[in-house]
Amino acid sequence: MTLKTTLSDLEIANKVAMKPIAEIAEAANIPEEALEQYGKYKAKIDHTKIPQNLEGKVVLVTATSPTPAGEGKSTVTVGLSDALRQLDQNVMVALREPSLGPVMGIKGGATGGGYAQVVPMQDINLHFTGDLHAITTANNALSALIDNHIHQGNELGIDPRRILWKRVLDMNDRSLRKVLIGLGGPTQGVPREDGFDITVASEIMAILCLATSLENLKERLSRIVIGYTYEKKPVYVKDLGVEGALTLLLKDAFKPNLVQTIEGTPALIHGGPFANIAHGCNSIMATQTARKLADIVVTEAGFGADLGAEKFMNIKARQGGFAPDAVVVVTTIRALKMHGGVAKNELSSENVAALKNGIPNLEKHIDSIRQFGIEPIIALNRFISDTENELEAIISWAHQNGIRIARTNVWEEGGKGGLELANHVLEVLGQPKSFTHLYETSDPVEKKIEAIVQRIYGGNGVQFTDKAKKQIYQIEQFGWDDLPICMAKTQYSLSDNPNELGRPENFTVTVREVIPKLGAGFLVCLTGEIMTMPGLPKKPAALKMDVAEDGSALGLF
Amino acid sequence: MTLKTTLSDLEIANKVAMKPIAEIAEAANIPEEALEQYGKYKAKIDHTKIPQNLEGKVVLVTATSPTPAGEGKSTVTVGLSDALRQLDQNVMVALREPSLGPVMGIKGGATGGGYAQVVPMQDINLHFTGDLHAITTANNALSALIDNHIHQGNELGIDPRRILWKRVLDMNDRSLRKVLIGLGGPTQGVPREDGFDITVASEIMAILCLATSLENLKERLSRIVIGYTYEKKPVYVKDLGVEGALTLLLKDAFKPNLVQTIEGTPALIHGGPFANIAHGCNSIMATQTARKLADIVVTEAGFGADLGAEKFMNIKARQGGFAPDAVVVVTTIRALKMHGGVAKNELSSENVAALKNGIPNLEKHIDSIRQFGIEPIIALNRFISDTENELEAIISWAHQNGIRIARTNVWEEGGKGGLELANHVLEVLGQPKSFTHLYETSDPVEKKIEAIVQRIYGGNGVQFTDKAKKQIYQIEQFGWDDLPICMAKTQYSLSDNPNELGRPENFTVTVREVIPKLGAGFLVCLTGEIMTMPGLPKKPAALKMDVAEDGSALGLF
Repeated sequence: MTLKTTLSDLEIANKVAMKPIAEIAEAANIPEEALEQYGKYKAKIDHTKIPQNLEGKVVLVTATSPTPAGEGKSTVTVGLSDALRQLDQNVMVALREPSLGPVMGIKGGATGGGYAQVVPMQDINLHFTGDLHAITTANNALSALIDNHIHQGNELGIDPRRILWKRVLDMNDRSLRKVLIGLGGPTQGVPREDGFDITVASEIMAILCLATSLENLKERLSRIVIGYTYEKKPVYVKDLGVEGALTLLLKDAFKPNLVQTIEGTPALIHGGPFANIAHGCNSIMATQTARKLADIVVTEAGFGADLGAEKFMNIKARQGGFAPDAVVVVTTIRALKMHGGVAKNELSSENVAALKNGIPNLEKHIDSIRQFGIEPIIALNRFISDTENELEAIISWAHQNGIRIARTNVWEEGGKGGLELANHVLEVLGQPKSFTHLYETSDPVEKKIEAIVQRIYGGNGVQFTDKAKKQIYQIEQFGWDDLPICMAKTQYSLSDNPNELGRPENFTVTVREVIPKLGAGFLVCLTGEIMTMPGLPKKPAALKMDVAEDGSALGLF
Repeated sequence: MTLKTTLSDLEIANKVAMKPIAEIAEAANIPEEALEQYGKYKAKIDHTKIPQNLEGKVVLVTATSPTPAGEGKSTVTVGLSDALRQLDQNVMVALREPSLGPVMGIKGGATGGGYAQVVPMQDINLHFTGDLHAITTANNALSALIDNHIHQGNELGIDPRRILWKRVLDMNDRSLRKVLIGLGGPTQGVPREDGFDITVASEIMAILCLATSLENLKERLSRIVIGYTYEKKPVYVKDLGVEGALTLLLKDAFKPNLVQTIEGTPALIHGGPFANIAHGCNSIMATQTARKLADIVVTEAGFGADLGAEKFMNIKARQGGFAPDAVVVVTTIRALKMHGGVAKNELSSENVAALKNGIPNLEKHIDSIRQFGIEPIIALNRFISDTENELEAIISWAHQNGIRIARTNVWEEGGKGGLELANHVLEVLGQPKSFTHLYETSDPVEKKIEAIVQRIYGGNGVQFTDKAKKQIYQIEQFGWDDLPICMAKTQYSLSDNPNELGRPENFTVTVREVIPKLGAGFLVCLTGEIMTMPGLPKKPAALKMDVAEDGSALGLF
């Protein structure tokens, strides 16, 4: 295999002759009255004006545990949709929308790569249609309203030391992680500790992604717990009476965004919650809108199958009232070699033994998908350094174990490089499915967590800290326990130790805290330090950015 | 005069059958390739694709010193443009865009009122096309980059105690006025004092409004002074090397936004800087784009003529390379009665004596406009409580003093209520003009400030605090003195004492600080406490907001 292109993602994207978005919409059977254009190549879709024609099947793309080698999950997701379209399928792709914060820090976008990209990539990676800004605004309006309530007499008796609700910015800004606010005397608010998260970590992002209607959005916002009173009673947004205002600020952001792939496949890009303290999937609204318009909807979930796919099944699909019809697990020979113990700078040398050492990571993720009653397909995403011996090793392993496997080369070839995978997907979609949840939300909290740790991570069991035990007790007392679990665990390992690559065995997972997110409708289990506000590197990507004379972006990727 | 409508502004706006924005654009001779739609009724205009056909005349709408009675400057601005259109003129109106922060706090928009409004008012008053969000992002990206620079070794030697650049949010949030950031230990940045302003107070807002091209925008961003080194040397954005990234974040926000008035007159709404610490006018880019497309451009400036109009002449028009061709001074009988000593709750009773007592405020603003070589027109904005005796008193005063005066009733009648004013404007536009600046930027700093205080405010002179004197000395040392002055003064009085209504005499103005804003290109003179981050009231407007079933806003106005 030789590399046919040396162009950057941005160069490839800029060479595309995009179709006007109205044309993409028309081809996707989106009625004109449902289309709200944002420039010539982006639009918001008013989902209330979409006819209830179809009930498309859902293909979930997930991956092995992420490594610095990169797996190319978004790229495969885009390429698979293009491949299905080449096979004359009525297909849409539904992706998460990127956060602007990291764009300023580390070169690299979130719109696929090579010839399997969504466009206009510049816009999508910058302000796009303003969804993240609307979420930032709603989040911080709530913060301002909380502090104003306390300043103006604190009728609800909110304890300023027990406020859970933090401010956010769509920015990598470590200096805002921990701040003191309300300084400067009696006219400047009440002093208290606070902190800023990055916008995608806001519960409002999770809510926007899980709400099933504008009414449901408002209802979810109303039940956010913002903190506790001096008597340690929970304070909800509805106690402040501002759920209407927050809904108003989010009403346009709630509409899915239509763009296109390089090959012209319609793409809905909407919502992008963290995949650790939140569920890491694009919005239910976008997925369901796509299902009304297309026979097949290809979508993805964050990190590896232990995090994103598990949450897709147990949180998103459950709350959305649907189930995936096929699951693709993306992996690369390079990634598996890293799981097998090879250092990043030695990945280009053939190493069949290390590859075989790394395969158990893939094996566990395959096993996890089967726990849900779905027969997964491996997408072996090709890289130029892959050798024939390595390819042979993994393909024969898959065949011996009766697992579907397809090579993909979508980065270089677009949809054509995903045809083998697409044919497998079509075969699976033609078979009956027997989807099953991993647990019932009515199960005890500890039992739900144990189900995930034992059956998805492959751990022996769970240890709960005293703090977590106390929190679970409180959650039960308040009647908040009938909710799915959102595990906040390192993405690098199946265990809670990021250094344990491959398929760790004989481990327990420690749950340090259990935090109720009633608006999102899940209980977050912290198993380690989770960074909710990233920092910038020593040489931020911002230093290379500029605008060309024609107004287009430079140095973005 | 009887009131013909009892509908709210929102109800009136919602009853309008808006034209598709493409139709408005076509009628305004905006080429299709220059139009970037944002939904069906908003668009951004790519000014580089507008033909250089016309060189429209500029009508500036200003007002007497603001009172709680309200003058209706934006309403008259919109109504005048509709009236000119009714007289078959090729006209556009160019307005400031509102800040979202105050919308959450105090009911009331910034899009005119009654039958003289711009629409869609809901959108304009909420996120609109995202300009303010882009400014917030660029501002805070710069903050994050500054703090990251210090955290990563501080190569430039920035003194964390001498950073001038503050963070911003488009929010009324008093608790963020003064904060401590960078807390939590060595991985969380360097602790320092900081504070948040509201986005419209950001220097980047002023820069966006004064830049004359994308290149000029970048150049202005590069010369922002963000603070000083340990050696007290200024640190510019160009020293950090991030002006390209900031320009990239602002490239779409830099394009003017097209909407329409209720009567279908094309309106450009773009930029809205504070009228105290900044210059309070819409963008040069919008005004100049409108001048290319229309024979007459009606625009406004913030607060009374002493602030907005003075800055329009000495800052905006100077930096934009044009001059206003006519000036309208809006006043009301109610406002003048307040300047004459009447309390707000007694305004509905006839009081000719108080009216006559208040006229000197109007008289001084008329005199100020004449200082620029322009003969102003008074727009007497009618209110239902005005009596015939009161009307007679002010009209005969104007006639005796040879001042043009026109009654306007645009709130109730739309353009029809502005025809008398429009005819006066057309007569003035037909006469030769002899515009002159109040001072040269090359004059000494003190002399420029004195010119404004003596000739515009009617004061005896200026007192400079020791701090201000030292700052002026430093400004001269750094070679930053060849810039116009941006006075930050109370809007309620011609003096620097907000309680002195009418036309104060025998006063001096105290300049406490002089702050260089090199990106904006002016020197801010603080004459009192200027609030750059408002707070929310005890019962914020947010409590009444909601979304109707059809997705439209409720309780917004």
